[in-house]
Amino acid sequence: MRSTPDLTALYRQVRSQTDQLVEPLSPEDCVAQSMPDASPTKWHLAHTSWFFETFILNEEISGYQPFHADFGYMFNSYYNTVGAQYPRPKRGLITRPSLSDIQRYREYVDRHMLRLLEEDLLGGGTAQIVELGLHHEQQHQELILTDIKHLLSFNPTASPYREIRATPDVSIKPMSWQYYSGGTCWTGTEGAEFAFDNEAPRHRVIIESFELGARLVTNGEYLAFMGDKGYARPEFWLSDGWATLQTEAWDSPLYWEKHDGAWFARTLSGLRKLREDEPVCHVSLYEADAYARWAGARLPTEFEWEEGAKTVAVDGNLAESEIFHPVPLQDANADSPSQLFGDVWEWTQSAYAPYPGYRPPVGALGEYNGKFMSNQSVLRGGSCVTPKSHIRASYRNFFPAQARWQFSGIRLARETR
Amino acid sequence: MRSTPDLTALYRQVRSQTDQLVEPLSPEDCVAQSMPDASPTKWHLAHTSWFFETFILNEEISGYQPFHADFGYMFNSYYNTVGAQYPRPKRGLITRPSLSDIQRYREYVDRHMLRLLEEDLLGGGTAQIVELGLHHEQQHQELILTDIKHLLSFNPTASPYREIRATPDVSIKPMSWQYYSGGTCWTGTEGAEFAFDNEAPRHRVIIESFELGARLVTNGEYLAFMGDKGYARPEFWLSDGWATLQTEAWDSPLYWEKHDGAWFARTLSGLRKLREDEPVCHVSLYEADAYARWAGARLPTEFEWEEGAKTVAVDGNLAESEIFHPVPLQDANADSPSQLFGDVWEWTQSAYAPYPGYRPPVGALGEYNGKFMSNQSVLRGGSCVTPKSHIRASYRNFFPAQARWQFSGIRLARETR
Amino acid sequence: MRSTPDLTALYRQVRSQTDQLVEPLSPEDCVAQSMPDASPTKWHLAHTSWFFETFILNEEISGYQPFHADFGYMFNSYYNTVGAQYPRPKRGLITRPSLSDIQRYREYVDRHMLRLLEEDLLGGGTAQIVELGLHHEQQHQELILTDIKHLLSFNPTASPYREIRATPDVSIKPMSWQYYSGGTCWTGTEGAEFAFDNEAPRHRVIIESFELGARLVTNGEYLAFMGDKGYARPEFWLSDGWATLQTEAWDSPLYWEKHDGAWFARTLSGLRKLREDEPVCHVSLYEADAYARWAGARLPTEFEWEEGAKTVAVDGNLAESEIFHPVPLQDANADSPSQLFGDVWEWTQSAYAPYPGYRPPVGALGEYNGKFMSNQSVLRGGSCVTPKSHIRASYRNFFPAQARWQFSGIRLARETR
Amino acid sequence: MRSTPDLTALYRQVRSQTDQLVEPLSPEDCVAQSMPDASPTKWHLAHTSWFFETFILNEEISGYQPFHADFGYMFNSYYNTVGAQYPRPKRGLITRPSLSDIQRYREYVDRHMLRLLEEDLLGGGTAQIVELGLHHEQQHQELILTDIKHLLSFNPTASPYREIRATPDVSIKPMSWQYYSGGTCWTGTEGAEFAFDNEAPRHRVIIESFELGARLVTNGEYLAFMGDKGYARPEFWLSDGWATLQTEAWDSPLYWEKHDGAWFARTLSGLRKLREDEPVCHVSLYEADAYARWAGARLPTEFEWEEGAKTVAVDGNLAESEIFHPVPLQDANADSPSQLFGDVWEWTQSAYAPYPGYRPPVGALGEYNGKFMSNQSVLRGGSCVTPKSHIRASYRNFFPAQARWQFSGIRLARETR
Repeated sequence: MRSTPDLTALYRQVRSQTDQLVEPLSPEDCVAQSMPDASPTKWHLAHTSWFFETFILNEEISGYQPFHADFGYMFNSYYNTVGAQYPRPKRGLITRPSLSDIQRYREYVDRHMLRLLEEDLLGGGTAQIVELGLHHEQQHQELILTDIKHLLSFNPTASPYREIRATPDVSIKPMSWQYYSGGTCWTGTEGAEFAFDNEAPRHRVIIESFELGARLVTNGEYLAFMGDKGYARPEFWLSDGWATLQTEAWDSPLYWEKHDGAWFARTLSGLRKLREDEPVCHVSLYEADAYARWAGARLPTEFEWEEGAKTVAVDGNLAESEIFHPVPLQDANADSPSQLFGDVWEWTQSAYAPYPGYRPPVGALGEYNGKFMSNQSVLRGGSCVTPKSHIRASYRNFFPAQARWQFSGIRLARETR
Repeated sequence: MRSTPDLTALYRQVRSQTDQLVEPLSPEDCVAQSMPDASPTKWHLAHTSWFFETFILNEEISGYQPFHADFGYMFNSYYNTVGAQYPRPKRGLITRPSLSDIQRYREYVDRHMLRLLEEDLLGGGTAQIVELGLHHEQQHQELILTDIKHLLSFNPTASPYREIRATPDVSIKPMSWQYYSGGTCWTGTEGAEFAFDNEAPRHRVIIESFELGARLVTNGEYLAFMGDKGYARPEFWLSDGWATLQTEAWDSPLYWEKHDGAWFARTLSGLRKLREDEPVCHVSLYEADAYARWAGARLPTEFEWEEGAKTVAVDGNLAESEIFHPVPLQDANADSPSQLFGDVWEWTQSAYAPYPGYRPPVGALGEYNGKFMSNQSVLRGGSCVTPKSHIRASYRNFFPAQARWQFSGIRLARETR
Repeated sequence: MRSTPDLTALYRQVRSQTDQLVEPLSPEDCVAQSMPDASPTKWHLAHTSWFFETFILNEEISGYQPFHADFGYMFNSYYNTVGAQYPRPKRGLITRPSLSDIQRYREYVDRHMLRLLEEDLLGGGTAQIVELGLHHEQQHQELILTDIKHLLSFNPTASPYREIRATPDVSIKPMSWQYYSGGTCWTGTEGAEFAFDNEAPRHRVIIESFELGARLVTNGEYLAFMGDKGYARPEFWLSDGWATLQTEAWDSPLYWEKHDGAWFARTLSGLRKLREDEPVCHVSLYEADAYARWAGARLPTEFEWEEGAKTVAVDGNLAESEIFHPVPLQDANADSPSQLFGDVWEWTQSAYAPYPGYRPPVGALGEYNGKFMSNQSVLRGGSCVTPKSHIRASYRNFFPAQARWQFSGIRLARETR
Repeated sequence: MRSTPDLTALYRQVRSQTDQLVEPLSPEDCVAQSMPDASPTKWHLAHTSWFFETFILNEEISGYQPFHADFGYMFNSYYNTVGAQYPRPKRGLITRPSLSDIQRYREYVDRHMLRLLEEDLLGGGTAQIVELGLHHEQQHQELILTDIKHLLSFNPTASPYREIRATPDVSIKPMSWQYYSGGTCWTGTEGAEFAFDNEAPRHRVIIESFELGARLVTNGEYLAFMGDKGYARPEFWLSDGWATLQTEAWDSPLYWEKHDGAWFARTLSGLRKLREDEPVCHVSLYEADAYARWAGARLPTEFEWEEGAKTVAVDGNLAESEIFHPVPLQDANADSPSQLFGDVWEWTQSAYAPYPGYRPPVGALGEYNGKFMSNQSVLRGGSCVTPKSHIRASYRNFFPAQARWQFSGIRLARETR
């Protein structure tokens, strides 16, 4: 059985980290919703508190008085077992409660949570739900940054989330490849640290020998694909991808803009000239897959990716570096692929499916992951907005193939020759 | 030639009236947009200032420095002659500039405008544009209230715009009718006071003798229509109305909600029990027309309405009463229909069309009214959110037949027997 | 009181005219539906028979046995009073009954109808419904040609409805104008011949003096508008028109195609080189209105049009000429505008509204015209696919402003100088 | 290397089988298209001929004259490498060429193909494409029946494709289960008979021990799920499924209708009373998955299914039985699950993905299968409209999770206890 962390310290740390992310934002920034898939910052702040109130405080404190009678409805995301939900596409219309009301809500929940934690009043199962709630909050930390980037991209003033230091230019070498022999490999969580239910059960898979690209695909390489009419040649595209490209009139990654013949990209520190040495980001699975075919390669399966990552330390350009943007490869690694963790989520060719023997938890928390196992693809490795303590080799993120507003990029794979 | 008002005083009064309307609202309330047809309060505040900046300051002050380089694009509503416009359905994403930035923008514009006005630097044509800008701002005062009502209606907390005093219950007598002999009648502005271009040219129309309902249709009467399966009987409905009713699943006016078998309505002072003595409000032309057919009557033409209103003083439950909700008829008027001005805009059966010989002004201001003369219906008389100095007998408001978020209600008419 | 025609002869003539129109078509041509607004030929054949079965045979023949139990549902167009209707957008899925079944249906209805007519068994009111049914069938004759043109336009083989003789080239003179003094004018049917309910009551309208273009606008003139960037300059367009143009990506009239730099048009006799001398056709109200503004003119009101047409004999390129396409002006007329009848329906600026005192007939036939009096514009004069006996000066056709698949074109008007 | 069949005999047999399927249909039945996913019968007849013309005749016969210049465009389904395609949703508008034209097209292609085949003029690679073309045609035989069923379901007359003999009632025993030990199992085609590219490469997968339901789920069992409010309880549904259910207002399988309290189903022999002993059919993956959860089981993976099927002879209620409807289980099989082949396609929980090392063929035929490997689920086993010679244990069919117009049903699986 795995040891539980110091939950009290962890609780304080994670919750305050969330508050810190919101500091550069005005109440107006925090209320708007730029599309149904994204949520307002204020909603993220409230929903993560709703999680603790619903699954811990309501259950553990006899006579607990919820902060507000309507919040159970307003800030439930998708837990049908808990009750009805305010319509997702209209979250941006919740101008009341105000941001300061929600901050009071957070303090109210924190006060009660910390009393429970400090007085050590929680049983083991409940402590695990608290831990889950903190990992849940970290997911929403990432979404706060992802969603605010999307929102600000609609602003003609190109006003930044905040000014972020630039990194020096780097000369990127041609792609090299890392060989893996495959075989019968174990995959999924070992259980020694926290993991979501969808990372279990640990099980064996058969993997043929394969190679992984030693680094992420760069903007410069992606520009070569575009220059070779990549967006106009159906032979590289999945059928759904080709249809999406035409419906959406895609001709470059999300957030790219051409001004006076030069490419720029919107970033969390505003509109910046596109750098060819940076990993390409904000591409859909369809674009990642088309690029890979054009490059004579393919995307890895999630099992190949995990095989490549499982002996690599979790390190890289993650949220703690506070750059919130992928950075050029600094030092190539001789023994393993670089940039496996951080920078960009790496699309795999694997559909998001249950591992053999998977059963969702009983009750509302069974809705956390299991019910999304259709029409989504697995991404691996975390990004520049993922907290370091949140990511691991067995971690499975998932988004629909057409999603582009996540920090998602491309790792290549190929058969061995 | 009509005399111009004291523009300086009028300017101060109208501008400060706008600011006053916003006082009960938070910055968050002011940024959100509940549908493409509605706009954020902040946008209204900025756009009305943009009007003066664009049509007066940029033209009249040599070397005038616009407040912000992007505002010309962001706050242009629909003037193609002036330039491109930020997409209307995305106005709610403009979290920056902040509300206080926009308030500074207003002050900046006011400072320049007042200098021009106080120093009497404007020629006659320009003074007329200033006057137009003030009537334009009054239209947006009304929209601020209309649109914020719509926005708050999506809020589960039923939080009010502000608390508003209730009026006493009234016993409403059965509908009586006012007779008009018709004939060859003059219609349109006489030119003695300000009027929009669409109220001219004054011209003659032939009107058969007719009757107008002596008061507005009430909620109680409308409930009788509903109780008689009015929303389920196609024989009362225009074909487009019947299709809309089914697509939108309408079964009552907008903002009506049934709780435990009793009808409630959302108002600017929150959710209130529906009062049968109040004029029915927030109905589409389709509903108004269907009600009229069910009641054995019809809607008036805009010329009949004007014939009924042209000798009646402009008075009633207008914005100055600060009730912002239609009120029951207090005193029936022996000589003319009651409630012609204020309470609710009255749907007419007239399509919004140019008067004979109408020509829009040359230049951008020609886009103010003329280009909307298709697929809209004329409404007359102003509502409880219309400023008293803004309305008159010749005033032509216009909305599409399916619009319900305006304070729109029902005046009946019928042929003489 | 107007005299009734020889109904038996008329019945035979109209019904056989319909059958004749179908002769060039295969059963497959007759089943398909190219858009919800258009109907399959087979449906037109059945619906016009359903009209007689429903409103005459079911009522007048005791124990009448309808031809098929399901036809009452399948071939009811929009008469809610009669009963439910098969969904309009799915009419093309009715592969059964077959075309020959429907032809038998027609014969069955004809046999019963002719017995009633020949034995003179109908009262006056019923005879009027028969007459209405024949005018109704003529409307569907026009729609058969209009809809089959639309259907065949999607066929890559450019296969014609049938080969139609070409007319010689004509040199068109610059537009001249016809003056009308206006005044208090009578409008609407005089009652001496058949008219639809929407042409009554006859009533007076005041018309200012005006001028009508002496002929229709030609393709050559319309090309000049296009060449002057007419489709790219918002100043000419109604707001809804400009929005529609962008949504639909319009840049020329319907059925125009550019091949190797030259304009062609799809016609009922296949794809043909565009002729500049022909009247422009298949334009929406928006395009007609924008053209008129560009040309420094405007569209006529329906009352102006009728004033111009009421002393003109009904003659021109109508369905009987069997050209089914507008033809160039042959002889200019010194005393009145040419081409008032036939060639193309002429858009007016008048919304389709009830005449003062209009009441729809009681019962199902009250749904014939009245319920469509919203969001439609009036067109006048008939087209090259309208039977000559069907059209008259008071005739009011109506379509939504964006409709283009009708044979609709442009007559200019202007104020007198 | 696998032996090739007698291609000439096979060609004659398959082509004539297609013609035979069309015999009960009129030209009108053959032209209509009931939704974008379905195609007209005539289009299927032409497209299967286009396949041979494009990939064999154009390549192999020097100076070959295609039957019609436009057919290459009109009857290309989705081969971008070959050229542009007529828009799929408009296939029902192709009233010309007629059905008899297309039958002549088939004869023309057959004449040329048979000369090549009989004179043995084809190399090995080309012979394989002919074989592929025949399996392709068998797929379209199935689609002809599937699509015509969908089309006729919109017909109010409930007219059948043809009368089909009924099977006797059967008493179905409670579900029993078949145990499999799993392990490291081979999956995919062995190469001894024809297989599509997506069935290769043959490879090993690790399968835990599992059980398969010994027969298909019946209508009676599915009614119990419905009676237990299965369509109203989100806990059984994938998130996308729950959303689809609400958007589409699903409350039973496709083609089920309730009349006077009793369930009926549309079949290829018309509207029939629902039989509880028949396998449930025309359910989406979402419904199959929800049913399985409700029943305490799950859907099999495609590898589990193949493990269960690989030693079972291909036999069952397939197209050759000419019932074209699932039939009740006649004899339970002691040694293996029954009904694995025929009756209904069995949804698996496996996303349609490439097998390890899969590479699509070079050229246009690479578009046959590979580009559809996203957002689709694998179905196994064939149905009552699948030709017997077309199906095998390694066969992978694929459809989106929401598809219901295929003959798709439910096989349960579960972990061993």
